[in-house]
Amino acid sequence: MVLTPLILDLIGVFFFAVSGSLLAARRGFDIVGSLLLGSLTGLGGGVLRDLILGVTPNAFAHPVYFLPPLLAVIAVYLFAPSVDSYKGTLLVFDAGGLALFCIVGTLKALDLGMPPVAAILLGMTTALGGGLMRDVVANQVPTLFDPKDIYAIPALLGAGLTALFWQLGFVNGWFQLGVATVVFTLRVLAMRFSWH
Amino acid sequence: MVLTPLILDLIGVFFFAVSGSLLAARRGFDIVGSLLLGSLTGLGGGVLRDLILGVTPNAFAHPVYFLPPLLAVIAVYLFAPSVDSYKGTLLVFDAGGLALFCIVGTLKALDLGMPPVAAILLGMTTALGGGLMRDVVANQVPTLFDPKDIYAIPALLGAGLTALFWQLGFVNGWFQLGVATVVFTLRVLAMRFSWH
Amino acid sequence: MVLTPLILDLIGVFFFAVSGSLLAARRGFDIVGSLLLGSLTGLGGGVLRDLILGVTPNAFAHPVYFLPPLLAVIAVYLFAPSVDSYKGTLLVFDAGGLALFCIVGTLKALDLGMPPVAAILLGMTTALGGGLMRDVVANQVPTLFDPKDIYAIPALLGAGLTALFWQLGFVNGWFQLGVATVVFTLRVLAMRFSWH
Repeated sequence: MVLTPLILDLIGVFFFAVSGSLLAARRGFDIVGSLLLGSLTGLGGGVLRDLILGVTPNAFAHPVYFLPPLLAVIAVYLFAPSVDSYKGTLLVFDAGGLALFCIVGTLKALDLGMPPVAAILLGMTTALGGGLMRDVVANQVPTLFDPKDIYAIPALLGAGLTALFWQLGFVNGWFQLGVATVVFTLRVLAMRFSWH
Repeated sequence: MVLTPLILDLIGVFFFAVSGSLLAARRGFDIVGSLLLGSLTGLGGGVLRDLILGVTPNAFAHPVYFLPPLLAVIAVYLFAPSVDSYKGTLLVFDAGGLALFCIVGTLKALDLGMPPVAAILLGMTTALGGGLMRDVVANQVPTLFDPKDIYAIPALLGAGLTALFWQLGFVNGWFQLGVATVVFTLRVLAMRFSWH
Repeated sequence: MVLTPLILDLIGVFFFAVSGSLLAARRGFDIVGSLLLGSLTGLGGGVLRDLILGVTPNAFAHPVYFLPPLLAVIAVYLFAPSVDSYKGTLLVFDAGGLALFCIVGTLKALDLGMPPVAAILLGMTTALGGGLMRDVVANQVPTLFDPKDIYAIPALLGAGLTALFWQLGFVNGWFQLGVATVVFTLRVLAMRFSWH
């Protein structure tokens, strides 16, 4: 299965970076500001996770991590003017990043020997950190705290399932794709029907 | 004396978490948002301190640290509707956390071999960090910067007394309770009489 | 040449701390709040860089780093009332900090064995981090994202030149002074003529 952790992680970075670049475009930041906000959104959660784990953050150990934010800002500048529903698009990409990061973050913590509960918390930190930083830096109340929305629960579910199946020795690419699909679907349905 | 550092630390986490959950309730965040903001407020200062000290943050090394935020959000949801003075209650719990964290943070830094001045600064980082993150994330100007209030001075006093008495070999449970009482009293009096 | 990294770094801390203290004075924070915001602005970028590099942050390993913020707040309180152009003054000091920190941060990362691209990113993190934290904590949209301004490009140029000349074995005090002058000049010209 080709979905290595690195590739899943880079796709997650891209998704979150798109959400950051979109918000930057909407707020009238220029292209450099879009790249910076996209990078912060895409890389912030993982950097925080790696600092807590006591390892060199991926984004700095492997600067290839700055490629997805670069692609994201190009994509946003090419397609954003034609996007009707800016907020919906932002949230869909945000949901994609959330779905991948809760898995990737939990697995990295487990691989480095953290106990399952701590690994779940680190998976949530990875998944929620970047979006939180995006909203804080853009000076708005974080999406995370929107009472009309469900945001943290899908991340907790994804991190919990990952830790559970990891302990059962059952984590592979298909499993990850399945969990990511569940988390993404739950998140998108929560938005669409304003559950809660 | 039963007031081990762990217990004092957990009580401090609880106090700060109550302040975060109260703010979340006031701002209309839901119960998950309250738990997240409470956790950030209660655990943020200690995580920052531990990252600077180069050790695995307590909150992730010992997930029991997430228990006080859980209790805090339950307490807030049970009692908050009957609280008349929301802001006063928030600040009293915040003062309790401040009083304990400036001691706990300074002692941990000293125990890990930091020189006294650095330990005092880390004690202040522990005491001020969580409340600062709470206010930043909730998108309001930090209480810390309210010119009609005295916030950092009691934390500096508590951290300074702790470092001084530690060097005199004079730190025990009673001492800690005494310093915490002084810091808490000073902070509450500053609020009540709008000193400054 | 007497411009050791330590001295350049402390001067950079002073410049950024002045920008933080000025903003605090403008926002009506008291002198303690000014000291705290100045410290955060002056030290925040370097602390973040050192955490990513996995070393004890300078500010805590060598508490002499808290001296420049102390001097900055005194300077601001002595001279600020007579400053006509508050915003221009803030930005000039901010530019001075930017010019020094993109060099110092890149060099420290290179000295600790980071590859050039990562070192450039860490130089930018050092240069942009403190100002970003200043604006986030003071609850305003970061200067960094002002579309009428050029902020990140000069930092990237300074970090890039530093990494390039370091690889050519060509980094000394005069070189650093030269790069800092180029970055500072570019930044100040960008402000003056509202390039962009």
